[in-house]
Amino acid sequence: MGKVFADISMSLDGFIAGPKPTLKEPLGRGGEQLHEWIVRLAAWRKPHGKPGGETGPDGNVMEESVSNTGAVIMGRRMFSGGEGSWENDPKADGWWGDNPPFHVPVFVLTKHAREKVNKKGGTSFTFVTDGIESALSQAKAAAGNKDISIAGGANTIQQFIRANLLDELQIHMVPVLLEGGTRLLENLGDTKLEKIRVIDSPLVTHLKFRIKK
Amino acid sequence: MGKVFADISMSLDGFIAGPKPTLKEPLGRGGEQLHEWIVRLAAWRKPHGKPGGETGPDGNVMEESVSNTGAVIMGRRMFSGGEGSWENDPKADGWWGDNPPFHVPVFVLTKHAREKVNKKGGTSFTFVTDGIESALSQAKAAAGNKDISIAGGANTIQQFIRANLLDELQIHMVPVLLEGGTRLLENLGDTKLEKIRVIDSPLVTHLKFRIKK
Repeated sequence: MGKVFADISMSLDGFIAGPKPTLKEPLGRGGEQLHEWIVRLAAWRKPHGKPGGETGPDGNVMEESVSNTGAVIMGRRMFSGGEGSWENDPKADGWWGDNPPFHVPVFVLTKHAREKVNKKGGTSFTFVTDGIESALSQAKAAAGNKDISIAGGANTIQQFIRANLLDELQIHMVPVLLEGGTRLLENLGDTKLEKIRVIDSPLVTHLKFRIKK
Repeated sequence: MGKVFADISMSLDGFIAGPKPTLKEPLGRGGEQLHEWIVRLAAWRKPHGKPGGETGPDGNVMEESVSNTGAVIMGRRMFSGGEGSWENDPKADGWWGDNPPFHVPVFVLTKHAREKVNKKGGTSFTFVTDGIESALSQAKAAAGNKDISIAGGANTIQQFIRANLLDELQIHMVPVLLEGGTRLLENLGDTKLEKIRVIDSPLVTHLKFRIKK
């Protein structure tokens, strides 16, 4: 049985996206800074079909998560954006393109039933309308012994933590201040964390926690 | 010329005190957890007149700051608390006792003029009514070549950062969630940080930043 984990970049002041996200700027104002450490990595470029890139501690951290992920769960807005999304256009596939970077089955939490979509490279999108526990049991069946990644957004990760369904949370803390946007660490009730690892590099500090049950 | 720095404990969700601080519980609900890593240290116990305590990486981090501090600046509430403070009783000396743990001149930002108070062990409290720049120039004169510690609270540290008067910020990040209280990293305009050091220990992660000017 794999674990259920979330890996997410967060600003030092606690935001996983800046203010006013749009389809063109999905991470909000200043939010792209949160991903600067990722997009230069070979471990990010490869699943996105791009050659080259950097290796090192940050790459190892990312590789470690990705290589053992057997299924992904995400919220509807992470699949398709906010305003003007596929809910108005049932054939639209969000912004992930023909060959999305997941390469495993993805389960999308949504209120809108929809046929499963199969993409190139092993990614499929299954739309789950009956809540996080159903998504988790479908993801577990798909993942076999591998891990389940709760990809986001904040609200989805918070739901899994509150329901006591998340085993590990890794925050990639980027030393920038966004001064507004979407917070990760709120609405968590009396969640207790156990810090299990910290890896620091020039661009980011990787803080890994076990959620106490 | 020493540097101007702030060293402060913060929860993973960004709070330096929990909700509803009182004179009896000055760090608010749950806030004492932020200081559990400190009060066990020899480097904390010694200036508080207590024997024993632990040594190690956390102690070294604290010792490093304290040993080169020549003067301290703090806000009025840090000196004397919130409700029922000395502003109603001009002879009260806050909660710092006869032999406060600073052992250097302390400059208190306040709207209420008051005579300087000399304490045992080298601590004095000077009350500054004309703003942070005046407090800083008085603190520099008192500190000589040593550093100036901006002790808090959040509002005072924010004022120094906004005025471009803080050189270094060290956050002692404690892996707890307070879910409310006083935030450190807000109202900072477009402040940019450069991460200069991370030291991790089981109870706390020490993140040191230079404020870019």
